[in-house]
Amino acid sequence: MKICIVSRIDYKEPVELAQSIGWMLRDLGHEVVYEQSVAAELGYTPVSLSEDFSADLIVVLGGDGSVLRTIRMLDRQVPVVGINQGQVGFLTDIERDKAEEILTSLSLPLPLDPRMRISIEYNGRSVGSALNEAVIVTSRPAKILKFEVFINGKQIDEFRADGLIIGTPTGSTAYAMSAGGPIVDSTIEAMLLVPLAPYMLSSRPYLINSKSEVEIRLVSVKPALLVIDGQDQYEIGENARLLIRKSSQPALFVDVGRGFFDKVEQKLRLL
Amino acid sequence: MKICIVSRIDYKEPVELAQSIGWMLRDLGHEVVYEQSVAAELGYTPVSLSEDFSADLIVVLGGDGSVLRTIRMLDRQVPVVGINQGQVGFLTDIERDKAEEILTSLSLPLPLDPRMRISIEYNGRSVGSALNEAVIVTSRPAKILKFEVFINGKQIDEFRADGLIIGTPTGSTAYAMSAGGPIVDSTIEAMLLVPLAPYMLSSRPYLINSKSEVEIRLVSVKPALLVIDGQDQYEIGENARLLIRKSSQPALFVDVGRGFFDKVEQKLRLL
Amino acid sequence: MKICIVSRIDYKEPVELAQSIGWMLRDLGHEVVYEQSVAAELGYTPVSLSEDFSADLIVVLGGDGSVLRTIRMLDRQVPVVGINQGQVGFLTDIERDKAEEILTSLSLPLPLDPRMRISIEYNGRSVGSALNEAVIVTSRPAKILKFEVFINGKQIDEFRADGLIIGTPTGSTAYAMSAGGPIVDSTIEAMLLVPLAPYMLSSRPYLINSKSEVEIRLVSVKPALLVIDGQDQYEIGENARLLIRKSSQPALFVDVGRGFFDKVEQKLRLL
Amino acid sequence: MKICIVSRIDYKEPVELAQSIGWMLRDLGHEVVYEQSVAAELGYTPVSLSEDFSADLIVVLGGDGSVLRTIRMLDRQVPVVGINQGQVGFLTDIERDKAEEILTSLSLPLPLDPRMRISIEYNGRSVGSALNEAVIVTSRPAKILKFEVFINGKQIDEFRADGLIIGTPTGSTAYAMSAGGPIVDSTIEAMLLVPLAPYMLSSRPYLINSKSEVEIRLVSVKPALLVIDGQDQYEIGENARLLIRKSSQPALFVDVGRGFFDKVEQKLRLL
Repeated sequence: MKICIVSRIDYKEPVELAQSIGWMLRDLGHEVVYEQSVAAELGYTPVSLSEDFSADLIVVLGGDGSVLRTIRMLDRQVPVVGINQGQVGFLTDIERDKAEEILTSLSLPLPLDPRMRISIEYNGRSVGSALNEAVIVTSRPAKILKFEVFINGKQIDEFRADGLIIGTPTGSTAYAMSAGGPIVDSTIEAMLLVPLAPYMLSSRPYLINSKSEVEIRLVSVKPALLVIDGQDQYEIGENARLLIRKSSQPALFVDVGRGFFDKVEQKLRLL
Repeated sequence: MKICIVSRIDYKEPVELAQSIGWMLRDLGHEVVYEQSVAAELGYTPVSLSEDFSADLIVVLGGDGSVLRTIRMLDRQVPVVGINQGQVGFLTDIERDKAEEILTSLSLPLPLDPRMRISIEYNGRSVGSALNEAVIVTSRPAKILKFEVFINGKQIDEFRADGLIIGTPTGSTAYAMSAGGPIVDSTIEAMLLVPLAPYMLSSRPYLINSKSEVEIRLVSVKPALLVIDGQDQYEIGENARLLIRKSSQPALFVDVGRGFFDKVEQKLRLL
Repeated sequence: MKICIVSRIDYKEPVELAQSIGWMLRDLGHEVVYEQSVAAELGYTPVSLSEDFSADLIVVLGGDGSVLRTIRMLDRQVPVVGINQGQVGFLTDIERDKAEEILTSLSLPLPLDPRMRISIEYNGRSVGSALNEAVIVTSRPAKILKFEVFINGKQIDEFRADGLIIGTPTGSTAYAMSAGGPIVDSTIEAMLLVPLAPYMLSSRPYLINSKSEVEIRLVSVKPALLVIDGQDQYEIGENARLLIRKSSQPALFVDVGRGFFDKVEQKLRLL
Repeated sequence: MKICIVSRIDYKEPVELAQSIGWMLRDLGHEVVYEQSVAAELGYTPVSLSEDFSADLIVVLGGDGSVLRTIRMLDRQVPVVGINQGQVGFLTDIERDKAEEILTSLSLPLPLDPRMRISIEYNGRSVGSALNEAVIVTSRPAKILKFEVFINGKQIDEFRADGLIIGTPTGSTAYAMSAGGPIVDSTIEAMLLVPLAPYMLSSRPYLINSKSEVEIRLVSVKPALLVIDGQDQYEIGENARLLIRKSSQPALFVDVGRGFFDKVEQKLRLL
């Protein structure tokens, strides 16, 4: 296999692990390449994930943020597996002490656990896809925004709130959970809408069919931010319109045999 | 078409409407039969819904309770349309003033809006299917029950609570909503788990893939009740086990062009 | 001091502890008497808590239920201290391994931590006082009740729900917490109203001044139950009216130096 | 009486009303002065609220924001009455059409409805008092903060969240309500703690005795903002410590006979 290694480089352990895992994988006969930032740390020739990138597998050493960033950089989705070098790690299926054993056992065709993503258009322009969620949030703390929600062109709700999360089932254990959303099995295809601190007392989470098109209109004149997967941030203004659809390209996690609720049960205990 | 009329008989208006709608449908060339209780009121020959019943359409005059009862009585699902003679009426798609117009326009093949149901087994014995929800609830007020939840044989949670709702997307606007559950588009196939007054602070609603098998074990020695669609009630005891699966027979609502969120928006305003 | 010992008798340990603590207290020069049920177990002369009872201190060996029952039996409140022989034990301030040490150190005048109680009238007749809460709850599972809430004679809300909790700050860590209520410092004097599974989406907990008079009217024709401190149960019917006021007699816990939030933090971790 | 008129000046109606009310009050024999911004609009000699200000009454024409700003500007609290020229108006007791009638009827001594405020110290330095709430909130959207909460020097909780509200009973119908807090009778003296989108599932609102001292420590290295009454904003950094106590100076609303729950019931219907 051609395997690309991505690693957080803000502390030593993952970088060292990136090196030793690279040695091991080459030893097993795989072609190993390193993504830019960790390549720079280790003195290897870097590859870029964004242009003409191809590989059979990407191994990410980091936390959920590292996995989200990697997946968001890819033009075309490639199988990904994460080795937990962060805290909670809903998206990193392999704990450190099992890394060598599990990586050794992998062979083509890789068993996959595809995860629905949502694609986001802001005022007619694509801003890419989210694996966890897109959040619209006031950029002036404690100032409320007004939203209108349309499904397939029909308005279904309007409310005032600090913000609005549009998430995936995968994202249901991330920010949407803090905002009071339900835990949604990642094998369900649906879009999750959760308001942040809604002023109308009656607002509650919605689950919307993944075949639907969700439009969010920001009615407020107040400035706001659109944050995608906690990574990229866009200033959005008056009358911003967001169009959210199921992305044609799901994220392709390698299935290492840990079920969704398994992880939920283990990870939530850590919180 | 062969059309069966079902009606609540606890007040006069629906019974009178049952008669006049029967006259109208016969006039349009349909074969019209009456279910037992309304047949008795009107002096017609009754048909029973439960044995060897067949029809092209059942028209229900009543509220959500009447529709739930009708669907639960059917051995084999038949297309159903409800004329609202109750209060909120999430399951009765036709308001009184549109009844004649819409019924006149119906012809075979009827456009259908199938709704997932769940089938429930209690200690190995089927207790039929639910369109809205099955609820396990303490029969001694203010005494807590202990539940274990398994998905496909694996325990995912355990908690103490007054009760537990296992619902469908259709049921998400019924009792599950009062208990704090999300609103789930009825076109999504999923099972909704919502605890009632959970003692562990962290319990929250789950959405589970409809292909999964959910098992609920009642660990308490305290007596409890199993209530299906708010209609039928079973005493369940110590170590009761409930097995919940997607039913092979969805309810078959006639699609009269009112979308799910349309109704949610209109009906919730009435609350 | 004259000390009365009360104990749960449904298992051996507390009864044995009741005996050894009695020996110890007599040895320290106190007059020790035993409440009826534990007296019967140990072959002592019983005293009744309800008639002409007087003592300087009651020691309760049991869980929160035992403490609630003891306080509810007293015509005139007497200082109480609980030794935890149950599970969570918000009302039993002494853990088993500290029992002898703390009891030995007590002397008159006892330091007190008075806790507000509420007195409840049902249709004009007193049904005593509650230390934790009074709950009105449907006696037909999954059937909703309709309530009207008046404060000092003025209607402030009406809603449909499975039930309604009227609690004290002490009760805020009991049933009211499961129903979504806030945690209220037991040194605040206030009444807490928390609906159970309210159908109106917007219902939320209220905190009401302890000087106010709260009236609850049950508008439903459905049967319901009034449960006080999880102990005593009354059938209440159509048009039931409950009048709730601050009781003139607070419960008198012996202050053994454990603050309210101290206990909250420790006990909630166990849930 | 010496009466000071304060008005929002961002649209015409309140300014015109400020003038006509001033004429009316002078006609009734009162001494009338105008606060700076409305004085500038009307060409009157301005008075400043902050230095050596004294008056028997301040009449505020505006919404809740105008009232909050006025009260926060005062060094020494003076009786205030609001005429609603905004939207919801929990703090403006007089509706436009009753303004002349009620103002005419006022005479010394004014009946008062004092409302508890909280005083806030940030890293040992006073940042004044809040009538509704102090909010600590992340200034990087979707990035979580870590808080430790101490009461009278003892840690009672720690949690990660988007933010934390420390409010008064008066503020319980403002931002704290959107964040899921209870509605607290304004005649109760207590401090309300409500986390914003807490990541630990089990965090819930606290009510704390107004005699206690609450300390909040911001453990995160991330930047955050402290916002007081939605008006003033302070950047607070790593290891910020906030000390919150009951303010010695309550806000002094003129009691025009509208009870707290009266307003709650009317105003919440408008949301």
